[in-house]
Amino acid sequence: MAKRKRHFQKRPKSTKSLNQAPGTATYVGRKESLEIELEVIDYNKLSFDRYLSNNPEDAFNFENEDKITWININGLYNTQEIEKLGKYYGLHPLIIEDIVNTNQRPKIDEYQDYLFVVAKMLYHKTNGELENEHISIVIGKDYILTFQEADGDVFDGVRDRISNAKGRIRNNGSDYLMFTLLDAIIDNYFVVIEEISDKIEILEEQLFVAKPSDDITFEIQELKRTVLRIRRAVFPLREVISRLEKIDNNLIEDKTQNYIRDLYDHIIQVSENIEIYREMTWGLMDMYMTTISNKMNEVMKVLTIMASIFIPLTFIAGIYGMNFEYMPELQYKYSYFILWGVMIVIFLAMLYYFQRKKWL
Amino acid sequence: MAKRKRHFQKRPKSTKSLNQAPGTATYVGRKESLEIELEVIDYNKLSFDRYLSNNPEDAFNFENEDKITWININGLYNTQEIEKLGKYYGLHPLIIEDIVNTNQRPKIDEYQDYLFVVAKMLYHKTNGELENEHISIVIGKDYILTFQEADGDVFDGVRDRISNAKGRIRNNGSDYLMFTLLDAIIDNYFVVIEEISDKIEILEEQLFVAKPSDDITFEIQELKRTVLRIRRAVFPLREVISRLEKIDNNLIEDKTQNYIRDLYDHIIQVSENIEIYREMTWGLMDMYMTTISNKMNEVMKVLTIMASIFIPLTFIAGIYGMNFEYMPELQYKYSYFILWGVMIVIFLAMLYYFQRKKWL
Amino acid sequence: MAKRKRHFQKRPKSTKSLNQAPGTATYVGRKESLEIELEVIDYNKLSFDRYLSNNPEDAFNFENEDKITWININGLYNTQEIEKLGKYYGLHPLIIEDIVNTNQRPKIDEYQDYLFVVAKMLYHKTNGELENEHISIVIGKDYILTFQEADGDVFDGVRDRISNAKGRIRNNGSDYLMFTLLDAIIDNYFVVIEEISDKIEILEEQLFVAKPSDDITFEIQELKRTVLRIRRAVFPLREVISRLEKIDNNLIEDKTQNYIRDLYDHIIQVSENIEIYREMTWGLMDMYMTTISNKMNEVMKVLTIMASIFIPLTFIAGIYGMNFEYMPELQYKYSYFILWGVMIVIFLAMLYYFQRKKWL
Amino acid sequence: MAKRKRHFQKRPKSTKSLNQAPGTATYVGRKESLEIELEVIDYNKLSFDRYLSNNPEDAFNFENEDKITWININGLYNTQEIEKLGKYYGLHPLIIEDIVNTNQRPKIDEYQDYLFVVAKMLYHKTNGELENEHISIVIGKDYILTFQEADGDVFDGVRDRISNAKGRIRNNGSDYLMFTLLDAIIDNYFVVIEEISDKIEILEEQLFVAKPSDDITFEIQELKRTVLRIRRAVFPLREVISRLEKIDNNLIEDKTQNYIRDLYDHIIQVSENIEIYREMTWGLMDMYMTTISNKMNEVMKVLTIMASIFIPLTFIAGIYGMNFEYMPELQYKYSYFILWGVMIVIFLAMLYYFQRKKWL
Amino acid sequence: MAKRKRHFQKRPKSTKSLNQAPGTATYVGRKESLEIELEVIDYNKLSFDRYLSNNPEDAFNFENEDKITWININGLYNTQEIEKLGKYYGLHPLIIEDIVNTNQRPKIDEYQDYLFVVAKMLYHKTNGELENEHISIVIGKDYILTFQEADGDVFDGVRDRISNAKGRIRNNGSDYLMFTLLDAIIDNYFVVIEEISDKIEILEEQLFVAKPSDDITFEIQELKRTVLRIRRAVFPLREVISRLEKIDNNLIEDKTQNYIRDLYDHIIQVSENIEIYREMTWGLMDMYMTTISNKMNEVMKVLTIMASIFIPLTFIAGIYGMNFEYMPELQYKYSYFILWGVMIVIFLAMLYYFQRKKWL
Ligand SMILES: [Mg+2]
Ligand SMILES: [Mg+2]
Ligand SMILES: [Mg+2]
Ligand SMILES: [Mg+2]
Ligand SMILES: [Mg+2]
Ligand SMILES: [Mg+2]
Ligand SMILES: [Mg+2]
Ligand SMILES: [Mg+2]
Ligand SMILES: [Mg+2]
Ligand SMILES: [Mg+2]
Ligand SMILES: [Mg+2]
Ligand SMILES: [Mg+2]
Ligand SMILES: [Mg+2]
Ligand SMILES: [Mg+2]
Ligand SMILES: [Mg+2]
Ligand SMILES: [Mg+2]
Ligand SMILES: [Mg+2]
Ligand SMILES: [Mg+2]
Ligand SMILES: [Mg+2]
Ligand SMILES: [Mg+2]
Ligand SMILES: [Mg+2]
Ligand SMILES: [Mg+2]
Ligand SMILES: [Mg+2]
Ligand SMILES: [Mg+2]
Ligand SMILES: [Mg+2]
Ligand SMILES: [Mg+2]
Ligand SMILES: [Mg+2]
Ligand SMILES: [Mg+2]
Ligand SMILES: [Mg+2]
Ligand SMILES: [Mg+2]
Ligand SMILES: [Mg+2]
Repeated sequence: MAKRKRHFQKRPKSTKSLNQAPGTATYVGRKESLEIELEVIDYNKLSFDRYLSNNPEDAFNFENEDKITWININGLYNTQEIEKLGKYYGLHPLIIEDIVNTNQRPKIDEYQDYLFVVAKMLYHKTNGELENEHISIVIGKDYILTFQEADGDVFDGVRDRISNAKGRIRNNGSDYLMFTLLDAIIDNYFVVIEEISDKIEILEEQLFVAKPSDDITFEIQELKRTVLRIRRAVFPLREVISRLEKIDNNLIEDKTQNYIRDLYDHIIQVSENIEIYREMTWGLMDMYMTTISNKMNEVMKVLTIMASIFIPLTFIAGIYGMNFEYMPELQYKYSYFILWGVMIVIFLAMLYYFQRKKWL
Repeated sequence: MAKRKRHFQKRPKSTKSLNQAPGTATYVGRKESLEIELEVIDYNKLSFDRYLSNNPEDAFNFENEDKITWININGLYNTQEIEKLGKYYGLHPLIIEDIVNTNQRPKIDEYQDYLFVVAKMLYHKTNGELENEHISIVIGKDYILTFQEADGDVFDGVRDRISNAKGRIRNNGSDYLMFTLLDAIIDNYFVVIEEISDKIEILEEQLFVAKPSDDITFEIQELKRTVLRIRRAVFPLREVISRLEKIDNNLIEDKTQNYIRDLYDHIIQVSENIEIYREMTWGLMDMYMTTISNKMNEVMKVLTIMASIFIPLTFIAGIYGMNFEYMPELQYKYSYFILWGVMIVIFLAMLYYFQRKKWL
Repeated sequence: MAKRKRHFQKRPKSTKSLNQAPGTATYVGRKESLEIELEVIDYNKLSFDRYLSNNPEDAFNFENEDKITWININGLYNTQEIEKLGKYYGLHPLIIEDIVNTNQRPKIDEYQDYLFVVAKMLYHKTNGELENEHISIVIGKDYILTFQEADGDVFDGVRDRISNAKGRIRNNGSDYLMFTLLDAIIDNYFVVIEEISDKIEILEEQLFVAKPSDDITFEIQELKRTVLRIRRAVFPLREVISRLEKIDNNLIEDKTQNYIRDLYDHIIQVSENIEIYREMTWGLMDMYMTTISNKMNEVMKVLTIMASIFIPLTFIAGIYGMNFEYMPELQYKYSYFILWGVMIVIFLAMLYYFQRKKWL
Repeated sequence: MAKRKRHFQKRPKSTKSLNQAPGTATYVGRKESLEIELEVIDYNKLSFDRYLSNNPEDAFNFENEDKITWININGLYNTQEIEKLGKYYGLHPLIIEDIVNTNQRPKIDEYQDYLFVVAKMLYHKTNGELENEHISIVIGKDYILTFQEADGDVFDGVRDRISNAKGRIRNNGSDYLMFTLLDAIIDNYFVVIEEISDKIEILEEQLFVAKPSDDITFEIQELKRTVLRIRRAVFPLREVISRLEKIDNNLIEDKTQNYIRDLYDHIIQVSENIEIYREMTWGLMDMYMTTISNKMNEVMKVLTIMASIFIPLTFIAGIYGMNFEYMPELQYKYSYFILWGVMIVIFLAMLYYFQRKKWL
Repeated sequence: MAKRKRHFQKRPKSTKSLNQAPGTATYVGRKESLEIELEVIDYNKLSFDRYLSNNPEDAFNFENEDKITWININGLYNTQEIEKLGKYYGLHPLIIEDIVNTNQRPKIDEYQDYLFVVAKMLYHKTNGELENEHISIVIGKDYILTFQEADGDVFDGVRDRISNAKGRIRNNGSDYLMFTLLDAIIDNYFVVIEEISDKIEILEEQLFVAKPSDDITFEIQELKRTVLRIRRAVFPLREVISRLEKIDNNLIEDKTQNYIRDLYDHIIQVSENIEIYREMTWGLMDMYMTTISNKMNEVMKVLTIMASIFIPLTFIAGIYGMNFEYMPELQYKYSYFILWGVMIVIFLAMLYYFQRKKWL
């Protein structure tokens, strides 16, 4: 009996944060390393700098107003450092709590001087495993903070475009950078849900061949679970983007609105596809049920045909195995051969009957 | 085991556009030919011209304000030419991206000087295959641009009416031409969904006859998929039309509003029918399940009747096949004949029993 | 294998109107007779006239402002005559198109001088068949036009009340006549859906008796289809009535509003009942499935009981049918009788076992 | 085959009111007695009178403005008397129609001088039968009219509190009396739906024991029907109460609003419970299906074990029952005993095999 | 047959409050002890007092305006004492009724001087049992009243933080205390629904192993019931929190709004998870069904293989057990051995056939 493997690892337990004061930064996640990786990308039209460190306080040296500063933090376990950074940037304690709570659902909060966005990155790690990573984004006038659970994300294309001065990023503000980050997150959703589609087709093929593994029920149930989890990661983002579209705030320039509308477009498209794959996944169970029943039908037919043909013949043989003293047929010379004839006729009649019933 | 055929070809992969800057025109589609077909139809009340070319730049010669110019482009693979055209007409880069992304869902975007509409044409190609073609429409004051994946569309009736000066097109503006194009698209939806209805009835008939193919589960699942895909192509257009109705824009004249309301009417009707066919399709699986179970019942009855009749008789024959020295019945002269009588009575009693149970 | 009969006849094909200019009156329906029946009812408080003709142009002679004129047209196939009438009354070409398109869903359109309402009459023809007839109603200040597919409708009670000067019709305007017509249409829905309720109970009874016909799956599927079609005919009318309630238009007097609210009440009630019958209908398939399974259980029990009792007994008989030279039991004088005793004990033990399992 | 009993009696037919003028008081109900019972309760802070009669016209003598008059009518069959009463109190003809139409769904209509509320009383009659009684309430400034189908209602607690001057009724206006009546109706819903809950648990227990009656499918279907009907009686009342909350009308005093909000609270709670019981009821069918299948599994196992053990043994016995002249085993002295040993070993091996498969 | 245990105890009956005047404090609950426990926590920035008593009237001594007073009452059975307290604080009679009615659903009522919130505490008692406790919260300017059914709640963390002057509570008003209490309630929901998730996985594992208990159907049904009940306790709280967010009332300070938004966030997250677990729970029944069917398939295969192999062989043995005088094979010396060969060949052919069918 094979061990069932899960598409996602188990979620961390909520009990951790029980009886904590609200706004207490309690790390709720799976990655428990004190190490924090700091990455600062500082740019404008003309200049570009990238700075790496393990000391989050190094992030305090980038208060230039003429440049956009993107500060990316990997590692949420060391909550004290996160809080220190939060205090420096004037973040509300509830935001810090949300940053380190990896169970937090996608959402947007508007504050006086910054926007706070929570999302989930779905992507494949270098080892091919599907990752569902919690990411928090703080968007200020000339800076963006991103907080990730660990190393690895979907932003390499963005980093390239900034450093190569390709695309529009270098000519625009932090709002456009935010859009680019969200766009990268959503683009990866398309890739992940296409895999669901592929998985559905693989299961359909398996149901189609003669002997689907007995585990298929559990694979289907696991696929349902995965679809529901992806849905949970993706659907709340629709509202986030929709609220971004409507925000009346000097952080977001008018010309960026077209791009946000485009994001909305894409997140709706992802959502619709998820709903379709969901319906297909739920249908798999019904398919499997008919497959099982079809097989049982086949089994029963074999049994019925074998039994229906030989049981009467065996009865006839039994008759002439009886030891009565007076059984006239026993003495006739051709009885045995006549009986063979009769039995062959019965045999053929039965075959014809089953043929006509289309059981053969 | 027959190969399952798909109603639609597989969608192109989304991975292509991963890590691209937003607004980058990345062709996401199945038709990879660099050739572009340009068709220009230029008309007003009095004159009509049709111009064909393979050079998109020929489209730049139609800046007459007193005529309506319909420029139709077939072929999206050569994104550079599409971008050139886009720049000439002042289209936003995000629009270019949507034009060449055949996965883009139907939508409407309002810009200062033009409307941008994405839709899906569902129609039968000359070889009878069902086509789901991505089409983008740009509506300006005195021009309309349409972008298609390839040769072949649903607009031949429109072309005829323009050239023959039949109907109202020649007397109206670009807004009426837009309506006519959308009307042609929606009229074809009716034809496509009627086929779904026919397919459902064919499957019902198959379930009704004695031996439905084992593939029927997969045909039903495939039909579900097709219904879901058509739904995805059609449903977002409802919102598009509904937004068209409410747009307050000098591109659309008041008198055209009645026509747009008519479009809305039709798209709602298509949607309702799709929902009905969807319910019927989902019901097919249940029908199939009862069909299988009914058959198994029949199989089991044959087995049970045969076994119930002959097993007791065989037992009796077995009794008198025993070799005990002292078995009084064996010596009686009429034993054998009496036994035959007893067995025939048992046989008839069994038949009567099954008859009364209505198993025969 | 009995022919499945449909509750409704097949809908006419939509392909007919493909490639037609919008507003082209293309008859889409099943009744292809060029004959048109014209019926004019002209009345006020004091006078009443009824006029029949086969020439639609006779409808042009009733321009008296002090009388309400109800012009009823039966027969939509002769679209030229319909168009002529439409032009006389200043109807928009799109309205003409909807009048002759029997697939048009129920709706209401407001124009400057008249309202346009489309509905479906569900009623039983004199031969008992269920009819789903397309009806279009144009309501002007002092006239009402009704267009029907053919002879026969649900308005005989209305005609009686007008001619007998019973009820309020003769004392009120065209708005009250419109209400009376819609009321008659909706009253008939109650009758039709009660039949659905009866059909459900008949099927439940059939499932309850021993041997439901094998066709019952298809009858249930057909009933589903009928419920869905009635729903499609009825549900859009809710919105029509609801819009009628809110219309701010001098065609509808204030005192008529109470009556329209009453209509709304009734259409909601019909809708609720349809939803209930729908749920019950969908439940029938599950009932049938348990019925089949219960039967199979019964069949299997008979087989198992017969086989379990006689197979061991036959084995015992087989033992003493063996021809070994040295089998001590064969020589004992009472062996045969002892064996009978043993077999009867086994037989009774088995019966007791099955009795205790409640299989008998 | 037991007769299925219905929880509710059949609804009266709608055909009765076909072809009637709107506003015609046509009794649609099951209780056809011409007798009308009149009950008048006339009270204020200080005085209390109760008056019974069979002559509805006696209701015309209570035009005192300083007292609240509650006039309760039992019996709707004598529509002429109802109409007479209606005319006296200035009720719209459509209201009279709704009062006597027991199929009318719960609703509220606002008129100039009074409110009109329709509801359904669900309660147990003295003989224990569940009653679904149509009740209409007219609320005027200083009077309330209630119309019931027959004797018996849920208002005895209200009558007690008025006569004993307990509670707030005697100190408040007709609006508070209306609230008290609706409160009594809704309180009874809680009792009725708790019975549904009990019925579900009884059916679950039946499914749990060895031999559920074959009728259980129909009991479940009947329970579904009951739940759907209760839902239909209860759900529209939510909207009625919600509208009552928002009404801006001098009939309802401000301080009564708190009480109406409380009603709303309760009706929402009833609705939520109905939805839960609905889901549980629908789940019963699935439970039953698995119960049947489990039983079939058990039956099949008995058969398979018996057959698998004895068929091979019988075959062996058959071998040595053959009459070949030269079969060496037959002559060996211990053959018979060795064979018994072999057969016992096979028997035990089979038992072990089935034990290990956990079929025993 | 094991007794089914319920996750929750049965709800108290609604009949208790039948025929009671509205606003009558009728205890509807399971805990019938007259004892009332009073706990008063009185604090501000600088001071902290905790006071315990069994005399509710001791609560009247805390009218200090510069301190926040939290009065917690355990025990609702003694309704007279509750009413006395209610009168002292000026609570509306309907509020008293809701406080003692443990069936009341979560809700919020706004009054002039206080807010009234009803919620459900889901938590594990010290004996490990899941408790669903009714709690009512009255929020005044400088006091909070909480009413619980009995001893034991989820507020120990809050009490600690107040007494230790940790967190923000001591520096804020009664609105922040209210938030802290609701936050503690919602934090516990996360713990409870995680158990549902675990229970689902346990059942999935059980379905995966060879012999799931026959009670599993009932465990699944019971789990459904539990999910539905938790849903009923949790879902209405969403609207409560949402209304709290929008309240324009001087009881709630602006800076507390951020915290309430955080509550909303969490309650939405709980709700989404409940919906997911609900879908998974409903899917379990389908999984079980396929598991049963798979097992039956296996059973049938064993039977069919045994029967198909030995029935023909037994027939052959039967042939040569016949007693015809003239059966040439019987005399040939090697007949017996040849027959063994033939039977072994048949045996192997059958095995090969079943192997190829993948039944072995
Ligand atoms: Mg907390
Ligand atoms: Mg997660
Ligand atoms: Mg990362
Ligand atoms: Mg994108
Ligand atoms: Mg786009
Ligand atoms: Mg496609
Ligand atoms: Mg991109
Ligand atoms: Mg597509
Ligand atoms: Mg094309
Ligand atoms: Mg059209
Ligand atoms: Mg139309
Ligand atoms: Mg199903
Ligand atoms: Mg039809
Ligand atoms: Mg057309
Ligand atoms: Mg139709
Ligand atoms: Mg007609
Ligand atoms: Mg009516
Ligand atoms: Mg009415
Ligand atoms: Mg009823
Ligand atoms: Mg009527
Ligand atoms: Mg009615
Ligand atoms: Mg009554
Ligand atoms: Mg109440
Ligand atoms: Mg209350
Ligand atoms: Mg099911
Ligand atoms: Mg409970
Ligand atoms: Mg009460
Ligand atoms: Mg409760
Ligand atoms: Mg407690
Ligand atoms: Mg919290
Ligand atoms: Mg938070």
